[in-house]
Amino acid sequence: MKTDYSYTPSRIDPAQSQLLRAQINEFHAEYCAVLDTGDVELWPEFFTDDALYRITSRENAELNLPVGLVYAEGRDMMHDRAVAIARTQMFAPRHTLHLVTNVRIIDETDSGEIEAQANFLLVQTLIEGPSTVHLAGRYYDRFVRAQNHRLLLKERQVIHDTAILANDLVYPV
Amino acid sequence: MKTDYSYTPSRIDPAQSQLLRAQINEFHAEYCAVLDTGDVELWPEFFTDDALYRITSRENAELNLPVGLVYAEGRDMMHDRAVAIARTQMFAPRHTLHLVTNVRIIDETDSGEIEAQANFLLVQTLIEGPSTVHLAGRYYDRFVRAQNHRLLLKERQVIHDTAILANDLVYPV
Amino acid sequence: MKTDYSYTPSRIDPAQSQLLRAQINEFHAEYCAVLDTGDVELWPEFFTDDALYRITSRENAELNLPVGLVYAEGRDMMHDRAVAIARTQMFAPRHTLHLVTNVRIIDETDSGEIEAQANFLLVQTLIEGPSTVHLAGRYYDRFVRAQNHRLLLKERQVIHDTAILANDLVYPV
Repeated sequence: MKTDYSYTPSRIDPAQSQLLRAQINEFHAEYCAVLDTGDVELWPEFFTDDALYRITSRENAELNLPVGLVYAEGRDMMHDRAVAIARTQMFAPRHTLHLVTNVRIIDETDSGEIEAQANFLLVQTLIEGPSTVHLAGRYYDRFVRAQNHRLLLKERQVIHDTAILANDLVYPV
Repeated sequence: MKTDYSYTPSRIDPAQSQLLRAQINEFHAEYCAVLDTGDVELWPEFFTDDALYRITSRENAELNLPVGLVYAEGRDMMHDRAVAIARTQMFAPRHTLHLVTNVRIIDETDSGEIEAQANFLLVQTLIEGPSTVHLAGRYYDRFVRAQNHRLLLKERQVIHDTAILANDLVYPV
Repeated sequence: MKTDYSYTPSRIDPAQSQLLRAQINEFHAEYCAVLDTGDVELWPEFFTDDALYRITSRENAELNLPVGLVYAEGRDMMHDRAVAIARTQMFAPRHTLHLVTNVRIIDETDSGEIEAQANFLLVQTLIEGPSTVHLAGRYYDRFVRAQNHRLLLKERQVIHDTAILANDLVYPV
């Protein structure tokens, strides 16, 4: 698990990574579309079988506190969470909208692992209400390529600036 | 008119659509620059002669209610609206800023029609005031190519999550 | 210094500027990462030695008021400012997150100067608090290429829509 969240310069030449940049942008757009249109059961399909996913605050991340608000090891755990969310609507209905920008490709290793980051803004709208900034932060990602060249997340850490209550964030980000 | 707003996987290989993705990003940036710097009379030029434009809420869209807050068929109707806005400033002066992200290319047909989506955040600033999230939502677009290869909108549906009052949204989005 | 902030159509064919667009997107992502992870002392390295940097409101810019909230001529002035910020924390600790979208390449001259714009949203989070829109506006940039083909800013004007108090904006944007 990545544990250093300070500034790391990119080691990738943008002239050599145009296709990869397009693929990562496309990945983020697909991933967020699944979350924002309510098909949360499709969400685990963006990860490898053994992927690590966690959501934690910047304070916790910088103190190296290991867990966080949400922590899942493996697609099975993600699937369980997704199913639980999809089938139990104990919270007020709302719409979410993810805006992902500032994609950075940090490195690509010989074994084909890609380290990347992106900024996100999660906008939430309660039914019949205004839209508000619900969560702002950064994705710290490690991608691998599946057999069909599609990107999959081997690790996603959602490090949020916003202070949140544990029961206020039910959906994956 | 598109009437299904649920999640549709992209049928486009990002490796085959890099140029198109760049063109769509460029289109959004130009379109929004025209709106945000106040030259709303240029706005209809981003559409085909027979284009359909509407702004409606996600609730209305999902219920298949046909019209919406704003509805225009054809560039002439858009032009009339744009002129009316440009010449009658009955509302408080404000600045707008569009942020467009998460471009998705859903499909490109043999006849050259391109189905695409993007997320937008419309930030509004009343003079001497703070900036607030005015509207958040998604563009559901159909593009065609003009003779000079430039993209034009044949259909744009602005589906917003935010609940808004009919008289609060005067400008196109 | 650029003094016209009205809408200027792009004179660049997106099909001919894919690499440049990727490089500019990468530049923004690196620039913002330096600011958002607190290494403000690296910030002047994104500029040429003689670069001009200013932050001013849209009202001031449109009235051609020359200075602004922040004004720096040359990397040395930027460096002094960056060091002063890094070493004196007289303001409440906070996190910042920049979202940069809507990149527009306006022109590229024969001498290799690139005129470009982008929209930004600066989200601020006071420790243990919610995230709020702190500043929204547009970058008006002139880039040149350094010897290693890397882009550097020769001019960045941060023109913000949001009304702000002079002592509320300490960091570069």
